[in-house]
Amino acid sequence: MSFADRLYAAISTKGTPAMVGLDPRFDRLPEPFRAHAKAGPKQAADALIEYHRCLLDVIAPHVAIVKPQSAFFEQLGEHGFRALADAVQSAKDRGLLVLMDAKRGDIGSTSEAYASTFLGGGWSDAFPASDALTVNPYLGEDACEPFLEAADRANAGLFLLVKTSNPGAGCFQDHGEPPLADIVAQKVADWGANRLGSSGWSSVGAVVGATRPEELAHFRKLMPHATILLPGFGFQGGTAEGLSSAFNARGEGAVVNASRSILFAFERKDLQHLSTWQERTEIALLEMKQALKPVSANPA
Amino acid sequence: MSFADRLYAAISTKGTPAMVGLDPRFDRLPEPFRAHAKAGPKQAADALIEYHRCLLDVIAPHVAIVKPQSAFFEQLGEHGFRALADAVQSAKDRGLLVLMDAKRGDIGSTSEAYASTFLGGGWSDAFPASDALTVNPYLGEDACEPFLEAADRANAGLFLLVKTSNPGAGCFQDHGEPPLADIVAQKVADWGANRLGSSGWSSVGAVVGATRPEELAHFRKLMPHATILLPGFGFQGGTAEGLSSAFNARGEGAVVNASRSILFAFERKDLQHLSTWQERTEIALLEMKQALKPVSANPA
Repeated sequence: MSFADRLYAAISTKGTPAMVGLDPRFDRLPEPFRAHAKAGPKQAADALIEYHRCLLDVIAPHVAIVKPQSAFFEQLGEHGFRALADAVQSAKDRGLLVLMDAKRGDIGSTSEAYASTFLGGGWSDAFPASDALTVNPYLGEDACEPFLEAADRANAGLFLLVKTSNPGAGCFQDHGEPPLADIVAQKVADWGANRLGSSGWSSVGAVVGATRPEELAHFRKLMPHATILLPGFGFQGGTAEGLSSAFNARGEGAVVNASRSILFAFERKDLQHLSTWQERTEIALLEMKQALKPVSANPA
Repeated sequence: MSFADRLYAAISTKGTPAMVGLDPRFDRLPEPFRAHAKAGPKQAADALIEYHRCLLDVIAPHVAIVKPQSAFFEQLGEHGFRALADAVQSAKDRGLLVLMDAKRGDIGSTSEAYASTFLGGGWSDAFPASDALTVNPYLGEDACEPFLEAADRANAGLFLLVKTSNPGAGCFQDHGEPPLADIVAQKVADWGANRLGSSGWSSVGAVVGATRPEELAHFRKLMPHATILLPGFGFQGGTAEGLSSAFNARGEGAVVNASRSILFAFERKDLQHLSTWQERTEIALLEMKQALKPVSANPA
């Protein structure tokens, strides 16, 4: 079953395109994990493992997919990679799909090495395979090929960076006429054209910031079969408003990621009447699902 | 002392701009490491640690700097990060500078996390700091800022991808008029302008493939104070021919990387009269230094 088909089956089951980013910031973990994380890299990794298992217990009933951000784990070196592997496996064990947000990009056999690390097909017991991977396209089409081939072999998905959620994304992505992001989007559409699942969606997706709803209809048109990953919901300022052009009438077409607005919810003043961080996290997640309902149901 | 100043002091001492890439391919290691690497990820990492210590003993007397390619290590998951950390530390212990080739790129606090992992300033004992890091600029200027700030704090260097060594690099990097790569090169020049060491070189460098000598003079002009990393020498087809426009009269201005032509030299038929892989590796390295002599001395 293709990644896209697995994704839309899971989204249909869970009833939401919401995705939770696993971006552990050591100074913003709930206790006792925060205290444990201060004891050193090994202890911090142990704390992350325990934390993510608990967090995933909260998340798993509600969403289809999670997105671990490799950068925050890598800070702990080898210990961080151990914690990242555990988070991936723990998510899979709970029936969640996993999109590894590592934004890798290189050439030839180096791209192959990254692709096999994160999507499988390499040293199979060294690191658990994710269902999809984010890829930086700057190095060109031939540099992306090894990722596409590895994804094909593993029935995995890719999300190419097209237009990112940061304020200065246009600096290079808007360069030229048509803008570079459009050229990348066209490649995403081309690569996806013969990678359509029975859902009608391709397994080659694109990242377009949820912070830029005004551009969504445009990118949807350029990539009619690509799932759009919309990061930046919540903390970065993205709202449900205006995201509907990414979705079809069945509520398919995009996944919406929130990280800090979910992960830091346990600190929210208005939720302190709830005694555990898990309850506060769950409330924030239910709020996000609620906010996305009119958008992803796309009543139009 | 700035990264650029440390680099040119070391290049002057060793008398060459040659750099060796540490790109361990498990099926192309000399024995007994190749056999050990087959036993599983942990054993493969142990083999890589031992191999790189031996390899660095060969390399250290001859060059200023090495470039570990993170991708090949990451294939072993947590074990790979342990082997990568050991390679970095072993290189530093032997007086070598280390350019971490991880081609990271993300936004905001995620860029910060990557930068502190590889350049220091985060969990200091989790991973040894490298002297410099390769960065993918696609996400924009604000996305590169955290890398610049971390490099400033650590007296480290950056090498931004401008025009890569793969045949299809132009796919996105040549988009627009002027081409995107020129726009990135201009940013590299701007970022470097107030980061000049007493050598006159900035610590913000650029990657331009050694496979494209015809473009070198152009990029040198756009980035007069940036050290250019020229990957692709040897195996990828890059030769000393035509690289001289990257260098000034003192042989400064660029580092030239070779990976496979050095690492696989132990398999060369014409070197089988030498009994150890180390001797064959050393010969290949001396050949490279010799080939670069007329270029980097720049008799013009």
